[in-house]
Amino acid sequence: MANKADHIDDTCQVALMPSGRQGKVKRGTNLLKAAQELGVELESICGGRQTCLKCQVIVEEGHFPKLGVTSSAVHLSPLTSRELELSQNERLEGRRLACAAEVVGDLLITVPEESQARKQIIAKAASDRTIEIDPAVRQVYVEVIPPELGDTRGDWERLVEALEEQWGIKEPAIDIRVLPTLQTALREENFAITLTLWQDKEVLRVQPGYKEGIYGLAIDVGSTTVVAHLCDLRTGEVLATEASMNTQVRYGEDLMSRVSYATSEAQGLARLNRAVILVINDLAEKAAQKAGLVVEDILDVVIVANPVMHHILLGINPKELGGAPFALAVDSALDLKAREIGLSLHPAARLHLLPIIAGHVGADNIAVQIAETPYEQQEITLIVDVGTNAEIVLGNREQILVASSPTGPAFEGAQITHGQRAAPGAVERVRIDPVSLEPRIKIIGYDGWIEPDMADQLPADVRATGICGSGIIEAIAEMYLAGIINANGLFEEACVERSERVRYGSRTGEYVLVDSSLTATGAPIVVNQNDVRAIQLAKAALYAGTKLLMAHRKVERVERVVLAGAFGSFISPLHAMILGLIPDCQLDKVVAVGNAAGDGARFALLNRGLRLKAVELARWVQHISTPLESSFQDEFVAALNIPHARDAFPHLAEILPDTPKNDGGERRRSRFRNRMSN
Amino acid sequence: MANKADHIDDTCQVALMPSGRQGKVKRGTNLLKAAQELGVELESICGGRQTCLKCQVIVEEGHFPKLGVTSSAVHLSPLTSRELELSQNERLEGRRLACAAEVVGDLLITVPEESQARKQIIAKAASDRTIEIDPAVRQVYVEVIPPELGDTRGDWERLVEALEEQWGIKEPAIDIRVLPTLQTALREENFAITLTLWQDKEVLRVQPGYKEGIYGLAIDVGSTTVVAHLCDLRTGEVLATEASMNTQVRYGEDLMSRVSYATSEAQGLARLNRAVILVINDLAEKAAQKAGLVVEDILDVVIVANPVMHHILLGINPKELGGAPFALAVDSALDLKAREIGLSLHPAARLHLLPIIAGHVGADNIAVQIAETPYEQQEITLIVDVGTNAEIVLGNREQILVASSPTGPAFEGAQITHGQRAAPGAVERVRIDPVSLEPRIKIIGYDGWIEPDMADQLPADVRATGICGSGIIEAIAEMYLAGIINANGLFEEACVERSERVRYGSRTGEYVLVDSSLTATGAPIVVNQNDVRAIQLAKAALYAGTKLLMAHRKVERVERVVLAGAFGSFISPLHAMILGLIPDCQLDKVVAVGNAAGDGARFALLNRGLRLKAVELARWVQHISTPLESSFQDEFVAALNIPHARDAFPHLAEILPDTPKNDGGERRRSRFRNRMSN
Repeated sequence: MANKADHIDDTCQVALMPSGRQGKVKRGTNLLKAAQELGVELESICGGRQTCLKCQVIVEEGHFPKLGVTSSAVHLSPLTSRELELSQNERLEGRRLACAAEVVGDLLITVPEESQARKQIIAKAASDRTIEIDPAVRQVYVEVIPPELGDTRGDWERLVEALEEQWGIKEPAIDIRVLPTLQTALREENFAITLTLWQDKEVLRVQPGYKEGIYGLAIDVGSTTVVAHLCDLRTGEVLATEASMNTQVRYGEDLMSRVSYATSEAQGLARLNRAVILVINDLAEKAAQKAGLVVEDILDVVIVANPVMHHILLGINPKELGGAPFALAVDSALDLKAREIGLSLHPAARLHLLPIIAGHVGADNIAVQIAETPYEQQEITLIVDVGTNAEIVLGNREQILVASSPTGPAFEGAQITHGQRAAPGAVERVRIDPVSLEPRIKIIGYDGWIEPDMADQLPADVRATGICGSGIIEAIAEMYLAGIINANGLFEEACVERSERVRYGSRTGEYVLVDSSLTATGAPIVVNQNDVRAIQLAKAALYAGTKLLMAHRKVERVERVVLAGAFGSFISPLHAMILGLIPDCQLDKVVAVGNAAGDGARFALLNRGLRLKAVELARWVQHISTPLESSFQDEFVAALNIPHARDAFPHLAEILPDTPKNDGGERRRSRFRNRMSN
Repeated sequence: MANKADHIDDTCQVALMPSGRQGKVKRGTNLLKAAQELGVELESICGGRQTCLKCQVIVEEGHFPKLGVTSSAVHLSPLTSRELELSQNERLEGRRLACAAEVVGDLLITVPEESQARKQIIAKAASDRTIEIDPAVRQVYVEVIPPELGDTRGDWERLVEALEEQWGIKEPAIDIRVLPTLQTALREENFAITLTLWQDKEVLRVQPGYKEGIYGLAIDVGSTTVVAHLCDLRTGEVLATEASMNTQVRYGEDLMSRVSYATSEAQGLARLNRAVILVINDLAEKAAQKAGLVVEDILDVVIVANPVMHHILLGINPKELGGAPFALAVDSALDLKAREIGLSLHPAARLHLLPIIAGHVGADNIAVQIAETPYEQQEITLIVDVGTNAEIVLGNREQILVASSPTGPAFEGAQITHGQRAAPGAVERVRIDPVSLEPRIKIIGYDGWIEPDMADQLPADVRATGICGSGIIEAIAEMYLAGIINANGLFEEACVERSERVRYGSRTGEYVLVDSSLTATGAPIVVNQNDVRAIQLAKAALYAGTKLLMAHRKVERVERVVLAGAFGSFISPLHAMILGLIPDCQLDKVVAVGNAAGDGARFALLNRGLRLKAVELARWVQHISTPLESSFQDEFVAALNIPHARDAFPHLAEILPDTPKNDGGERRRSRFRNRMSN
C-alpha cells in the first residue's frame, strides 16, 4: 500500500495571472510559497502571518484547457478563522490570503496588481516610463521570543535570531540611536514588532506591533533652486513636492563666486553648508506637513547636486573645483546617515548621494540620465539641463559624452532686470503680435492668456511679479520674431515708431512686456538690452558646448532633444530653438521635461537598482572638458547670434523671419496665430 | 649559454634571528620582502619607502656552519643615498634599512626587537603575562598620484587605488568627518600622507607627509569608580592612568537605585548618561594632558562596564535589568564611533564595547577573565572582582561558571562611616596590636607604617582623610583577630576595659582607628558596629555566591584565588580570607591584582584578537543566576560570621583566634609580628 501511495500524483498544477507563470507544486504547499516557487513574488510585510493582508489573491473558477487546469475555490484549504473574521468585516471581498491557504488541487490564481511585490508605477505623468518599486528601505513584521530567566541573550540577539528564521535576514546591525527604543517597543505589543530595514543590513526603526508606512525624500540641490519630492516608498506616489530658493545665493550667484566665498572667508564654507542644510530641512518639514506626516516619518533620502553643491553639503571645501585640474575630493556614490550632515528627519534616516562624473558634471547629471535613459536609446539624443551650471549630454546606447557649460543663472531669472524664480506671479509664457507688437502673457497661478487690457477682468490677486526662465526665453524669441531685436540681439531703433512699448535711448532699448496695470508693484515689467545680452551669453555657452560634443561624437545633427531644467514651467521647445539654445532638430522630437534631475533622484529613491546603474553610468560616460577645447571660443562667438551666425535651422524655415523681413506683416501674423496654439 | 645560465643557482640562503627562521630567496629580493617570505614580519609604516626607519636590521659577519651560511655586509646591495645620509646623521648606527637593501648573497640577519612587527610586551608589572601589540587601528604611509586634467577621479578614489597598490587594502571607507580634511592634507606634502586605519576598513585620520603616533584609551566604568588608561598603541606603554568617582553616585549609590532613578525620573536616564560621559571626557582630558597629548590624538577606545553602566552609556534605559528576567537590550560586542555616545576625542575615534555575559554579569567581567585567563588554567581558579556589584568566576580551561553578587558599595568605602575612595589620605593598611589594641596604619601617599604617636614626625600634609576598601577589610579582620569584635561581628563589651580606643554604649560599639592628631579634619576616624555590619553583609554575599558556584562546579575547594577590584590599593589576601570574603585556600595561591577589569580593557585595546576571544568567552562561560538558587539565603546567613559559621579554614589554623581565646596574648602577639611583615 505504501508503495502504491508513492505513485499517486501528489502535485497540483498552479497557474498565476497576469504573469502567466505556471507549474507543479507539492499538494499542501502554502499558496504564498507556491507562488514564490513559480517565480511570482507576492507582497508581504507580516511574513505570512495573516496580519498585513497584502497577499490577497482571486481564485478563478472553471476549466481552462490551454492551461490544463480545472480551477476551483475548493482546491484551496478552507478559510481560516482569521479569513472568516475578515470576510465578515467585508475586508476580503471574496479573495483569499495566499499565506492562509494551502494548495490541495489545480488552480488558476489572479494576483491583483496591489498584491504584486515590486509593483511597477508610471514614473512620470508626461511619459510612459515605468519604475519598479524596490526601495532601499522596507518594513518587516517580526515576532520575537520573550526573554526568560536562564536565557541570558539580549532582546536584540533574540530579534536577530527571529529575523533570520522568519525573513532569512542574516547579521543585521541596528542604529545606535534606535537600539534604546527596542525594549519598550518589544514590550508594547507582546514582542511583535515592525522593523524598518535598510538594504536588509541595518535596522533603522522599531515600531510596536504591525505597522505600515514608509516615506522617502528625493532632493535636487541646484545652485539657485532646491526641489524636494516626498514619496510613499510602498506605492511610489509623490505625496508632496516643495521647491525653494537656495539661500546660498546671498553669498554668490554662480558656482564660482561660491567657491571663492568658501575659500576666502573664514566662516565661508560653514555658512554655505548651513544655508543649504537649513533649506533642505525646511523643505522636508513643509513637504511632510503637506502630506499629513512628520519629518520623523522620512527614512531614506536621495540627494543629487552638482559637484560644488555636493562638496559643500558634505562640509568639504570646494576650492579645488575653482581651478584646473578641478580635483574632486570624492566622486563615488556615498551612503551615509542623514543626521551626519545635519538633516533633521528620522534619527536613523539614510542618505544616498549619487556619484559624480567629473569636476563640473555632477550627480545631478547622472540623475538626469537616469530619468531620461539616453543610454537605452538608439537615436542620438541631446539632453540640455538648463541651470546656473548647465550640463549637456549627447549620445545613445553606444556612447555618451557629457560636458558642463557655465551659463550663469540667467535662465533661472537671476541677472535679468525683472527676473524671478518660477513661482506664482511669474510670467511664464509670452507671445508678441508681430504687427502691433502687443504682448500676451501667461502668469503662474492663472490659467489662460492675459492681454494688456484685461486688468479689470482679472481677480485682484492675479498680477505679474516678474519673469521666470521659461518666460524670458519666450519673450526674447518672440521679440526676435517680431523684429524688436535683430539677429545680433540689438534693439531695432526703428521699432519705437511701431509701438510705444519699445523705448530706445543712449544706444540701448527696452520692451514693456507687462503694463503697470497688470503688475503687482504697479511699475511696468520690461525686457531690456542687458537682459537680452545675458540670455545670449547663456544660450551661446550651451550651444557651443553642444557643438563640441557633436564634433567629438562625430555627428552632424541630433535626432532628439530633451530640455530639462529645474524651473517650475517647462521650456517651450519651439522658442528654445528659435533662440538658438539648441541646434536644429525635427520639432516634434524636441521635448521639455522639467526637473529631470529631481525625477532621477526620485527614481533612485524608489529603486535601488537604479543606484547601481548610476554608479555604472558614472564610470561609462565620457567627460569632455570644454575649457580644454581650443574651438570653444569660436563656437561661443558664433552662437551669440539669434539663432546662430552660420548654422542653418531648416526645421524653422517657416517660422524664422525672412530676408527681406518686411512683407507687410501678413506671414508673420499667420505664423503668430500658429504659435498661439502651442 | 642561456640554458647554462638557467642552471646557475640564483637563490640565496637567508637566516633571521632571533626567530631562527631561514630559507632560500631569489637573488635580488628586497630584504623586507625576503624576511616576509620567510615568515618574519618587520615593522613598517611607510610601506618600504626608507621613510619610517622602522625596519632596521643588523647584518652578522662570519661563517655559520650550522646554518650553512657565510654572511657578509657585502651580500646586500650597497647603501642607498638615503641610508648614507642617515648614517652621516648617526641615525642608523651601522644597521641597514631592510626595505633599502637587496639580497645578493647568503646572510644571517638579526632583527632587533624594535624592528619586529607585533611586538610582545609585558602586560603587567606584577606578572609575566605578555601581550602581542596588534591594535585595531594602525598607521600607514601612502603616496597618491596627483590629479591632472582629463583624470576625472576624485582624490579619495586615487587614494583608494594607492592603498590597494601599496598596502593591499581593498575597499576602505572614510569617516564623513575626515573626508573634508583629505584634499588639504594631500596637498600639504606633495600627495604623501599618513592614514590611520581601523581594521584596515575605514580611514579615521589623514595626516600630511610621514607621521607617527597613535593612542588609545581603555576605560573601566564601575558603579563607583571610573578608571582610564591612556596607551601608546605602537609600544603598548601606559602613558597615563586616571581614576575618578562615577558622579552618577549622586543619583544612587548602588546599581538598583540607579535603575530606579532612570525609570522613575523623567530626565533620570539622560542625567545618568550625561554624568558618566562627562566623567569619561574629563578623564581623557586629564590623561592626555599628563601624557603631553591632546584628546584628538586618541583614535580608539575600549570600554568595559557592568550591564547597567553599559546600557546607560548607550542611552538605553536599564529598567529591564531591575527585575526578572533581567533582559538585556543587547549583549553582543559593539563597534561604534566614540562621538556617537558623546565622547570628545578625535572626531572619528572608534569605540569598542566588550560583550556582556548576562543581565548582571557584564563586559567588565569578561575583561577580568581576559586579564587573568582562568580559561587557560588547569587549576580550579576563583576570581572575585570586588565592586559595588561583585562578580565571581569559578573554573578552569574545561568549564567556567560566573555569577554576580550584589555586595553594595561598602568595599569601595561607601556606606562606611569614614569610608572614602582610594585616594591620597585614605587609610589603606591596618594592623592592630592584639594586646594593647593600638593600631598602625598606612596612608595612601605616604610610604611607611604610621603609629598613633607619630603626628609630630610626619609632614604636615600627611593626614588621614578616611578609610578606603583595602583599609576597611584589614581593619575589621584585625579587629576580629584582636578580639575587639567576635565571630558574629559584634563589639566585645569587655574590650572597653582593655583600651580607651574601644567605646561601647547603647548596645553598639566603635573603635578609634586614627586619633584626631593624625586626621585631616582633626576629628578621629572610627570603625563602628554599622561599618562592621555593612562589610559582613557584603562579604557574605560574595562568599555565598562562591559557594553556589563551587556546588555547581562540583568542587570542594578552590586551588587558586584572584582578588580583583578597582580600588587603588590591592586587597590583602590574608585579611580577605580572615574576614571570610573568600573560602579557604593555600595562602600563597591567593593573589590580589587590583583593577583587572581595567587591565582586560587595556589588553583588548592593544590586541584585537582578544576582542574576538572575548566574544567567544561570553558565549562559552556559563552564567549561574544566584537569585534562582534556593540555597543562596542559607549560604548567605552562614557566611555572615567571621570567617564563617561552619566552613573550616585549615590554612588559617595558625592565625585565627583559638578557643579559649585568653592565653595572655603571647601567641596573638607573635602572629601579629608575622602579619606586620606582610
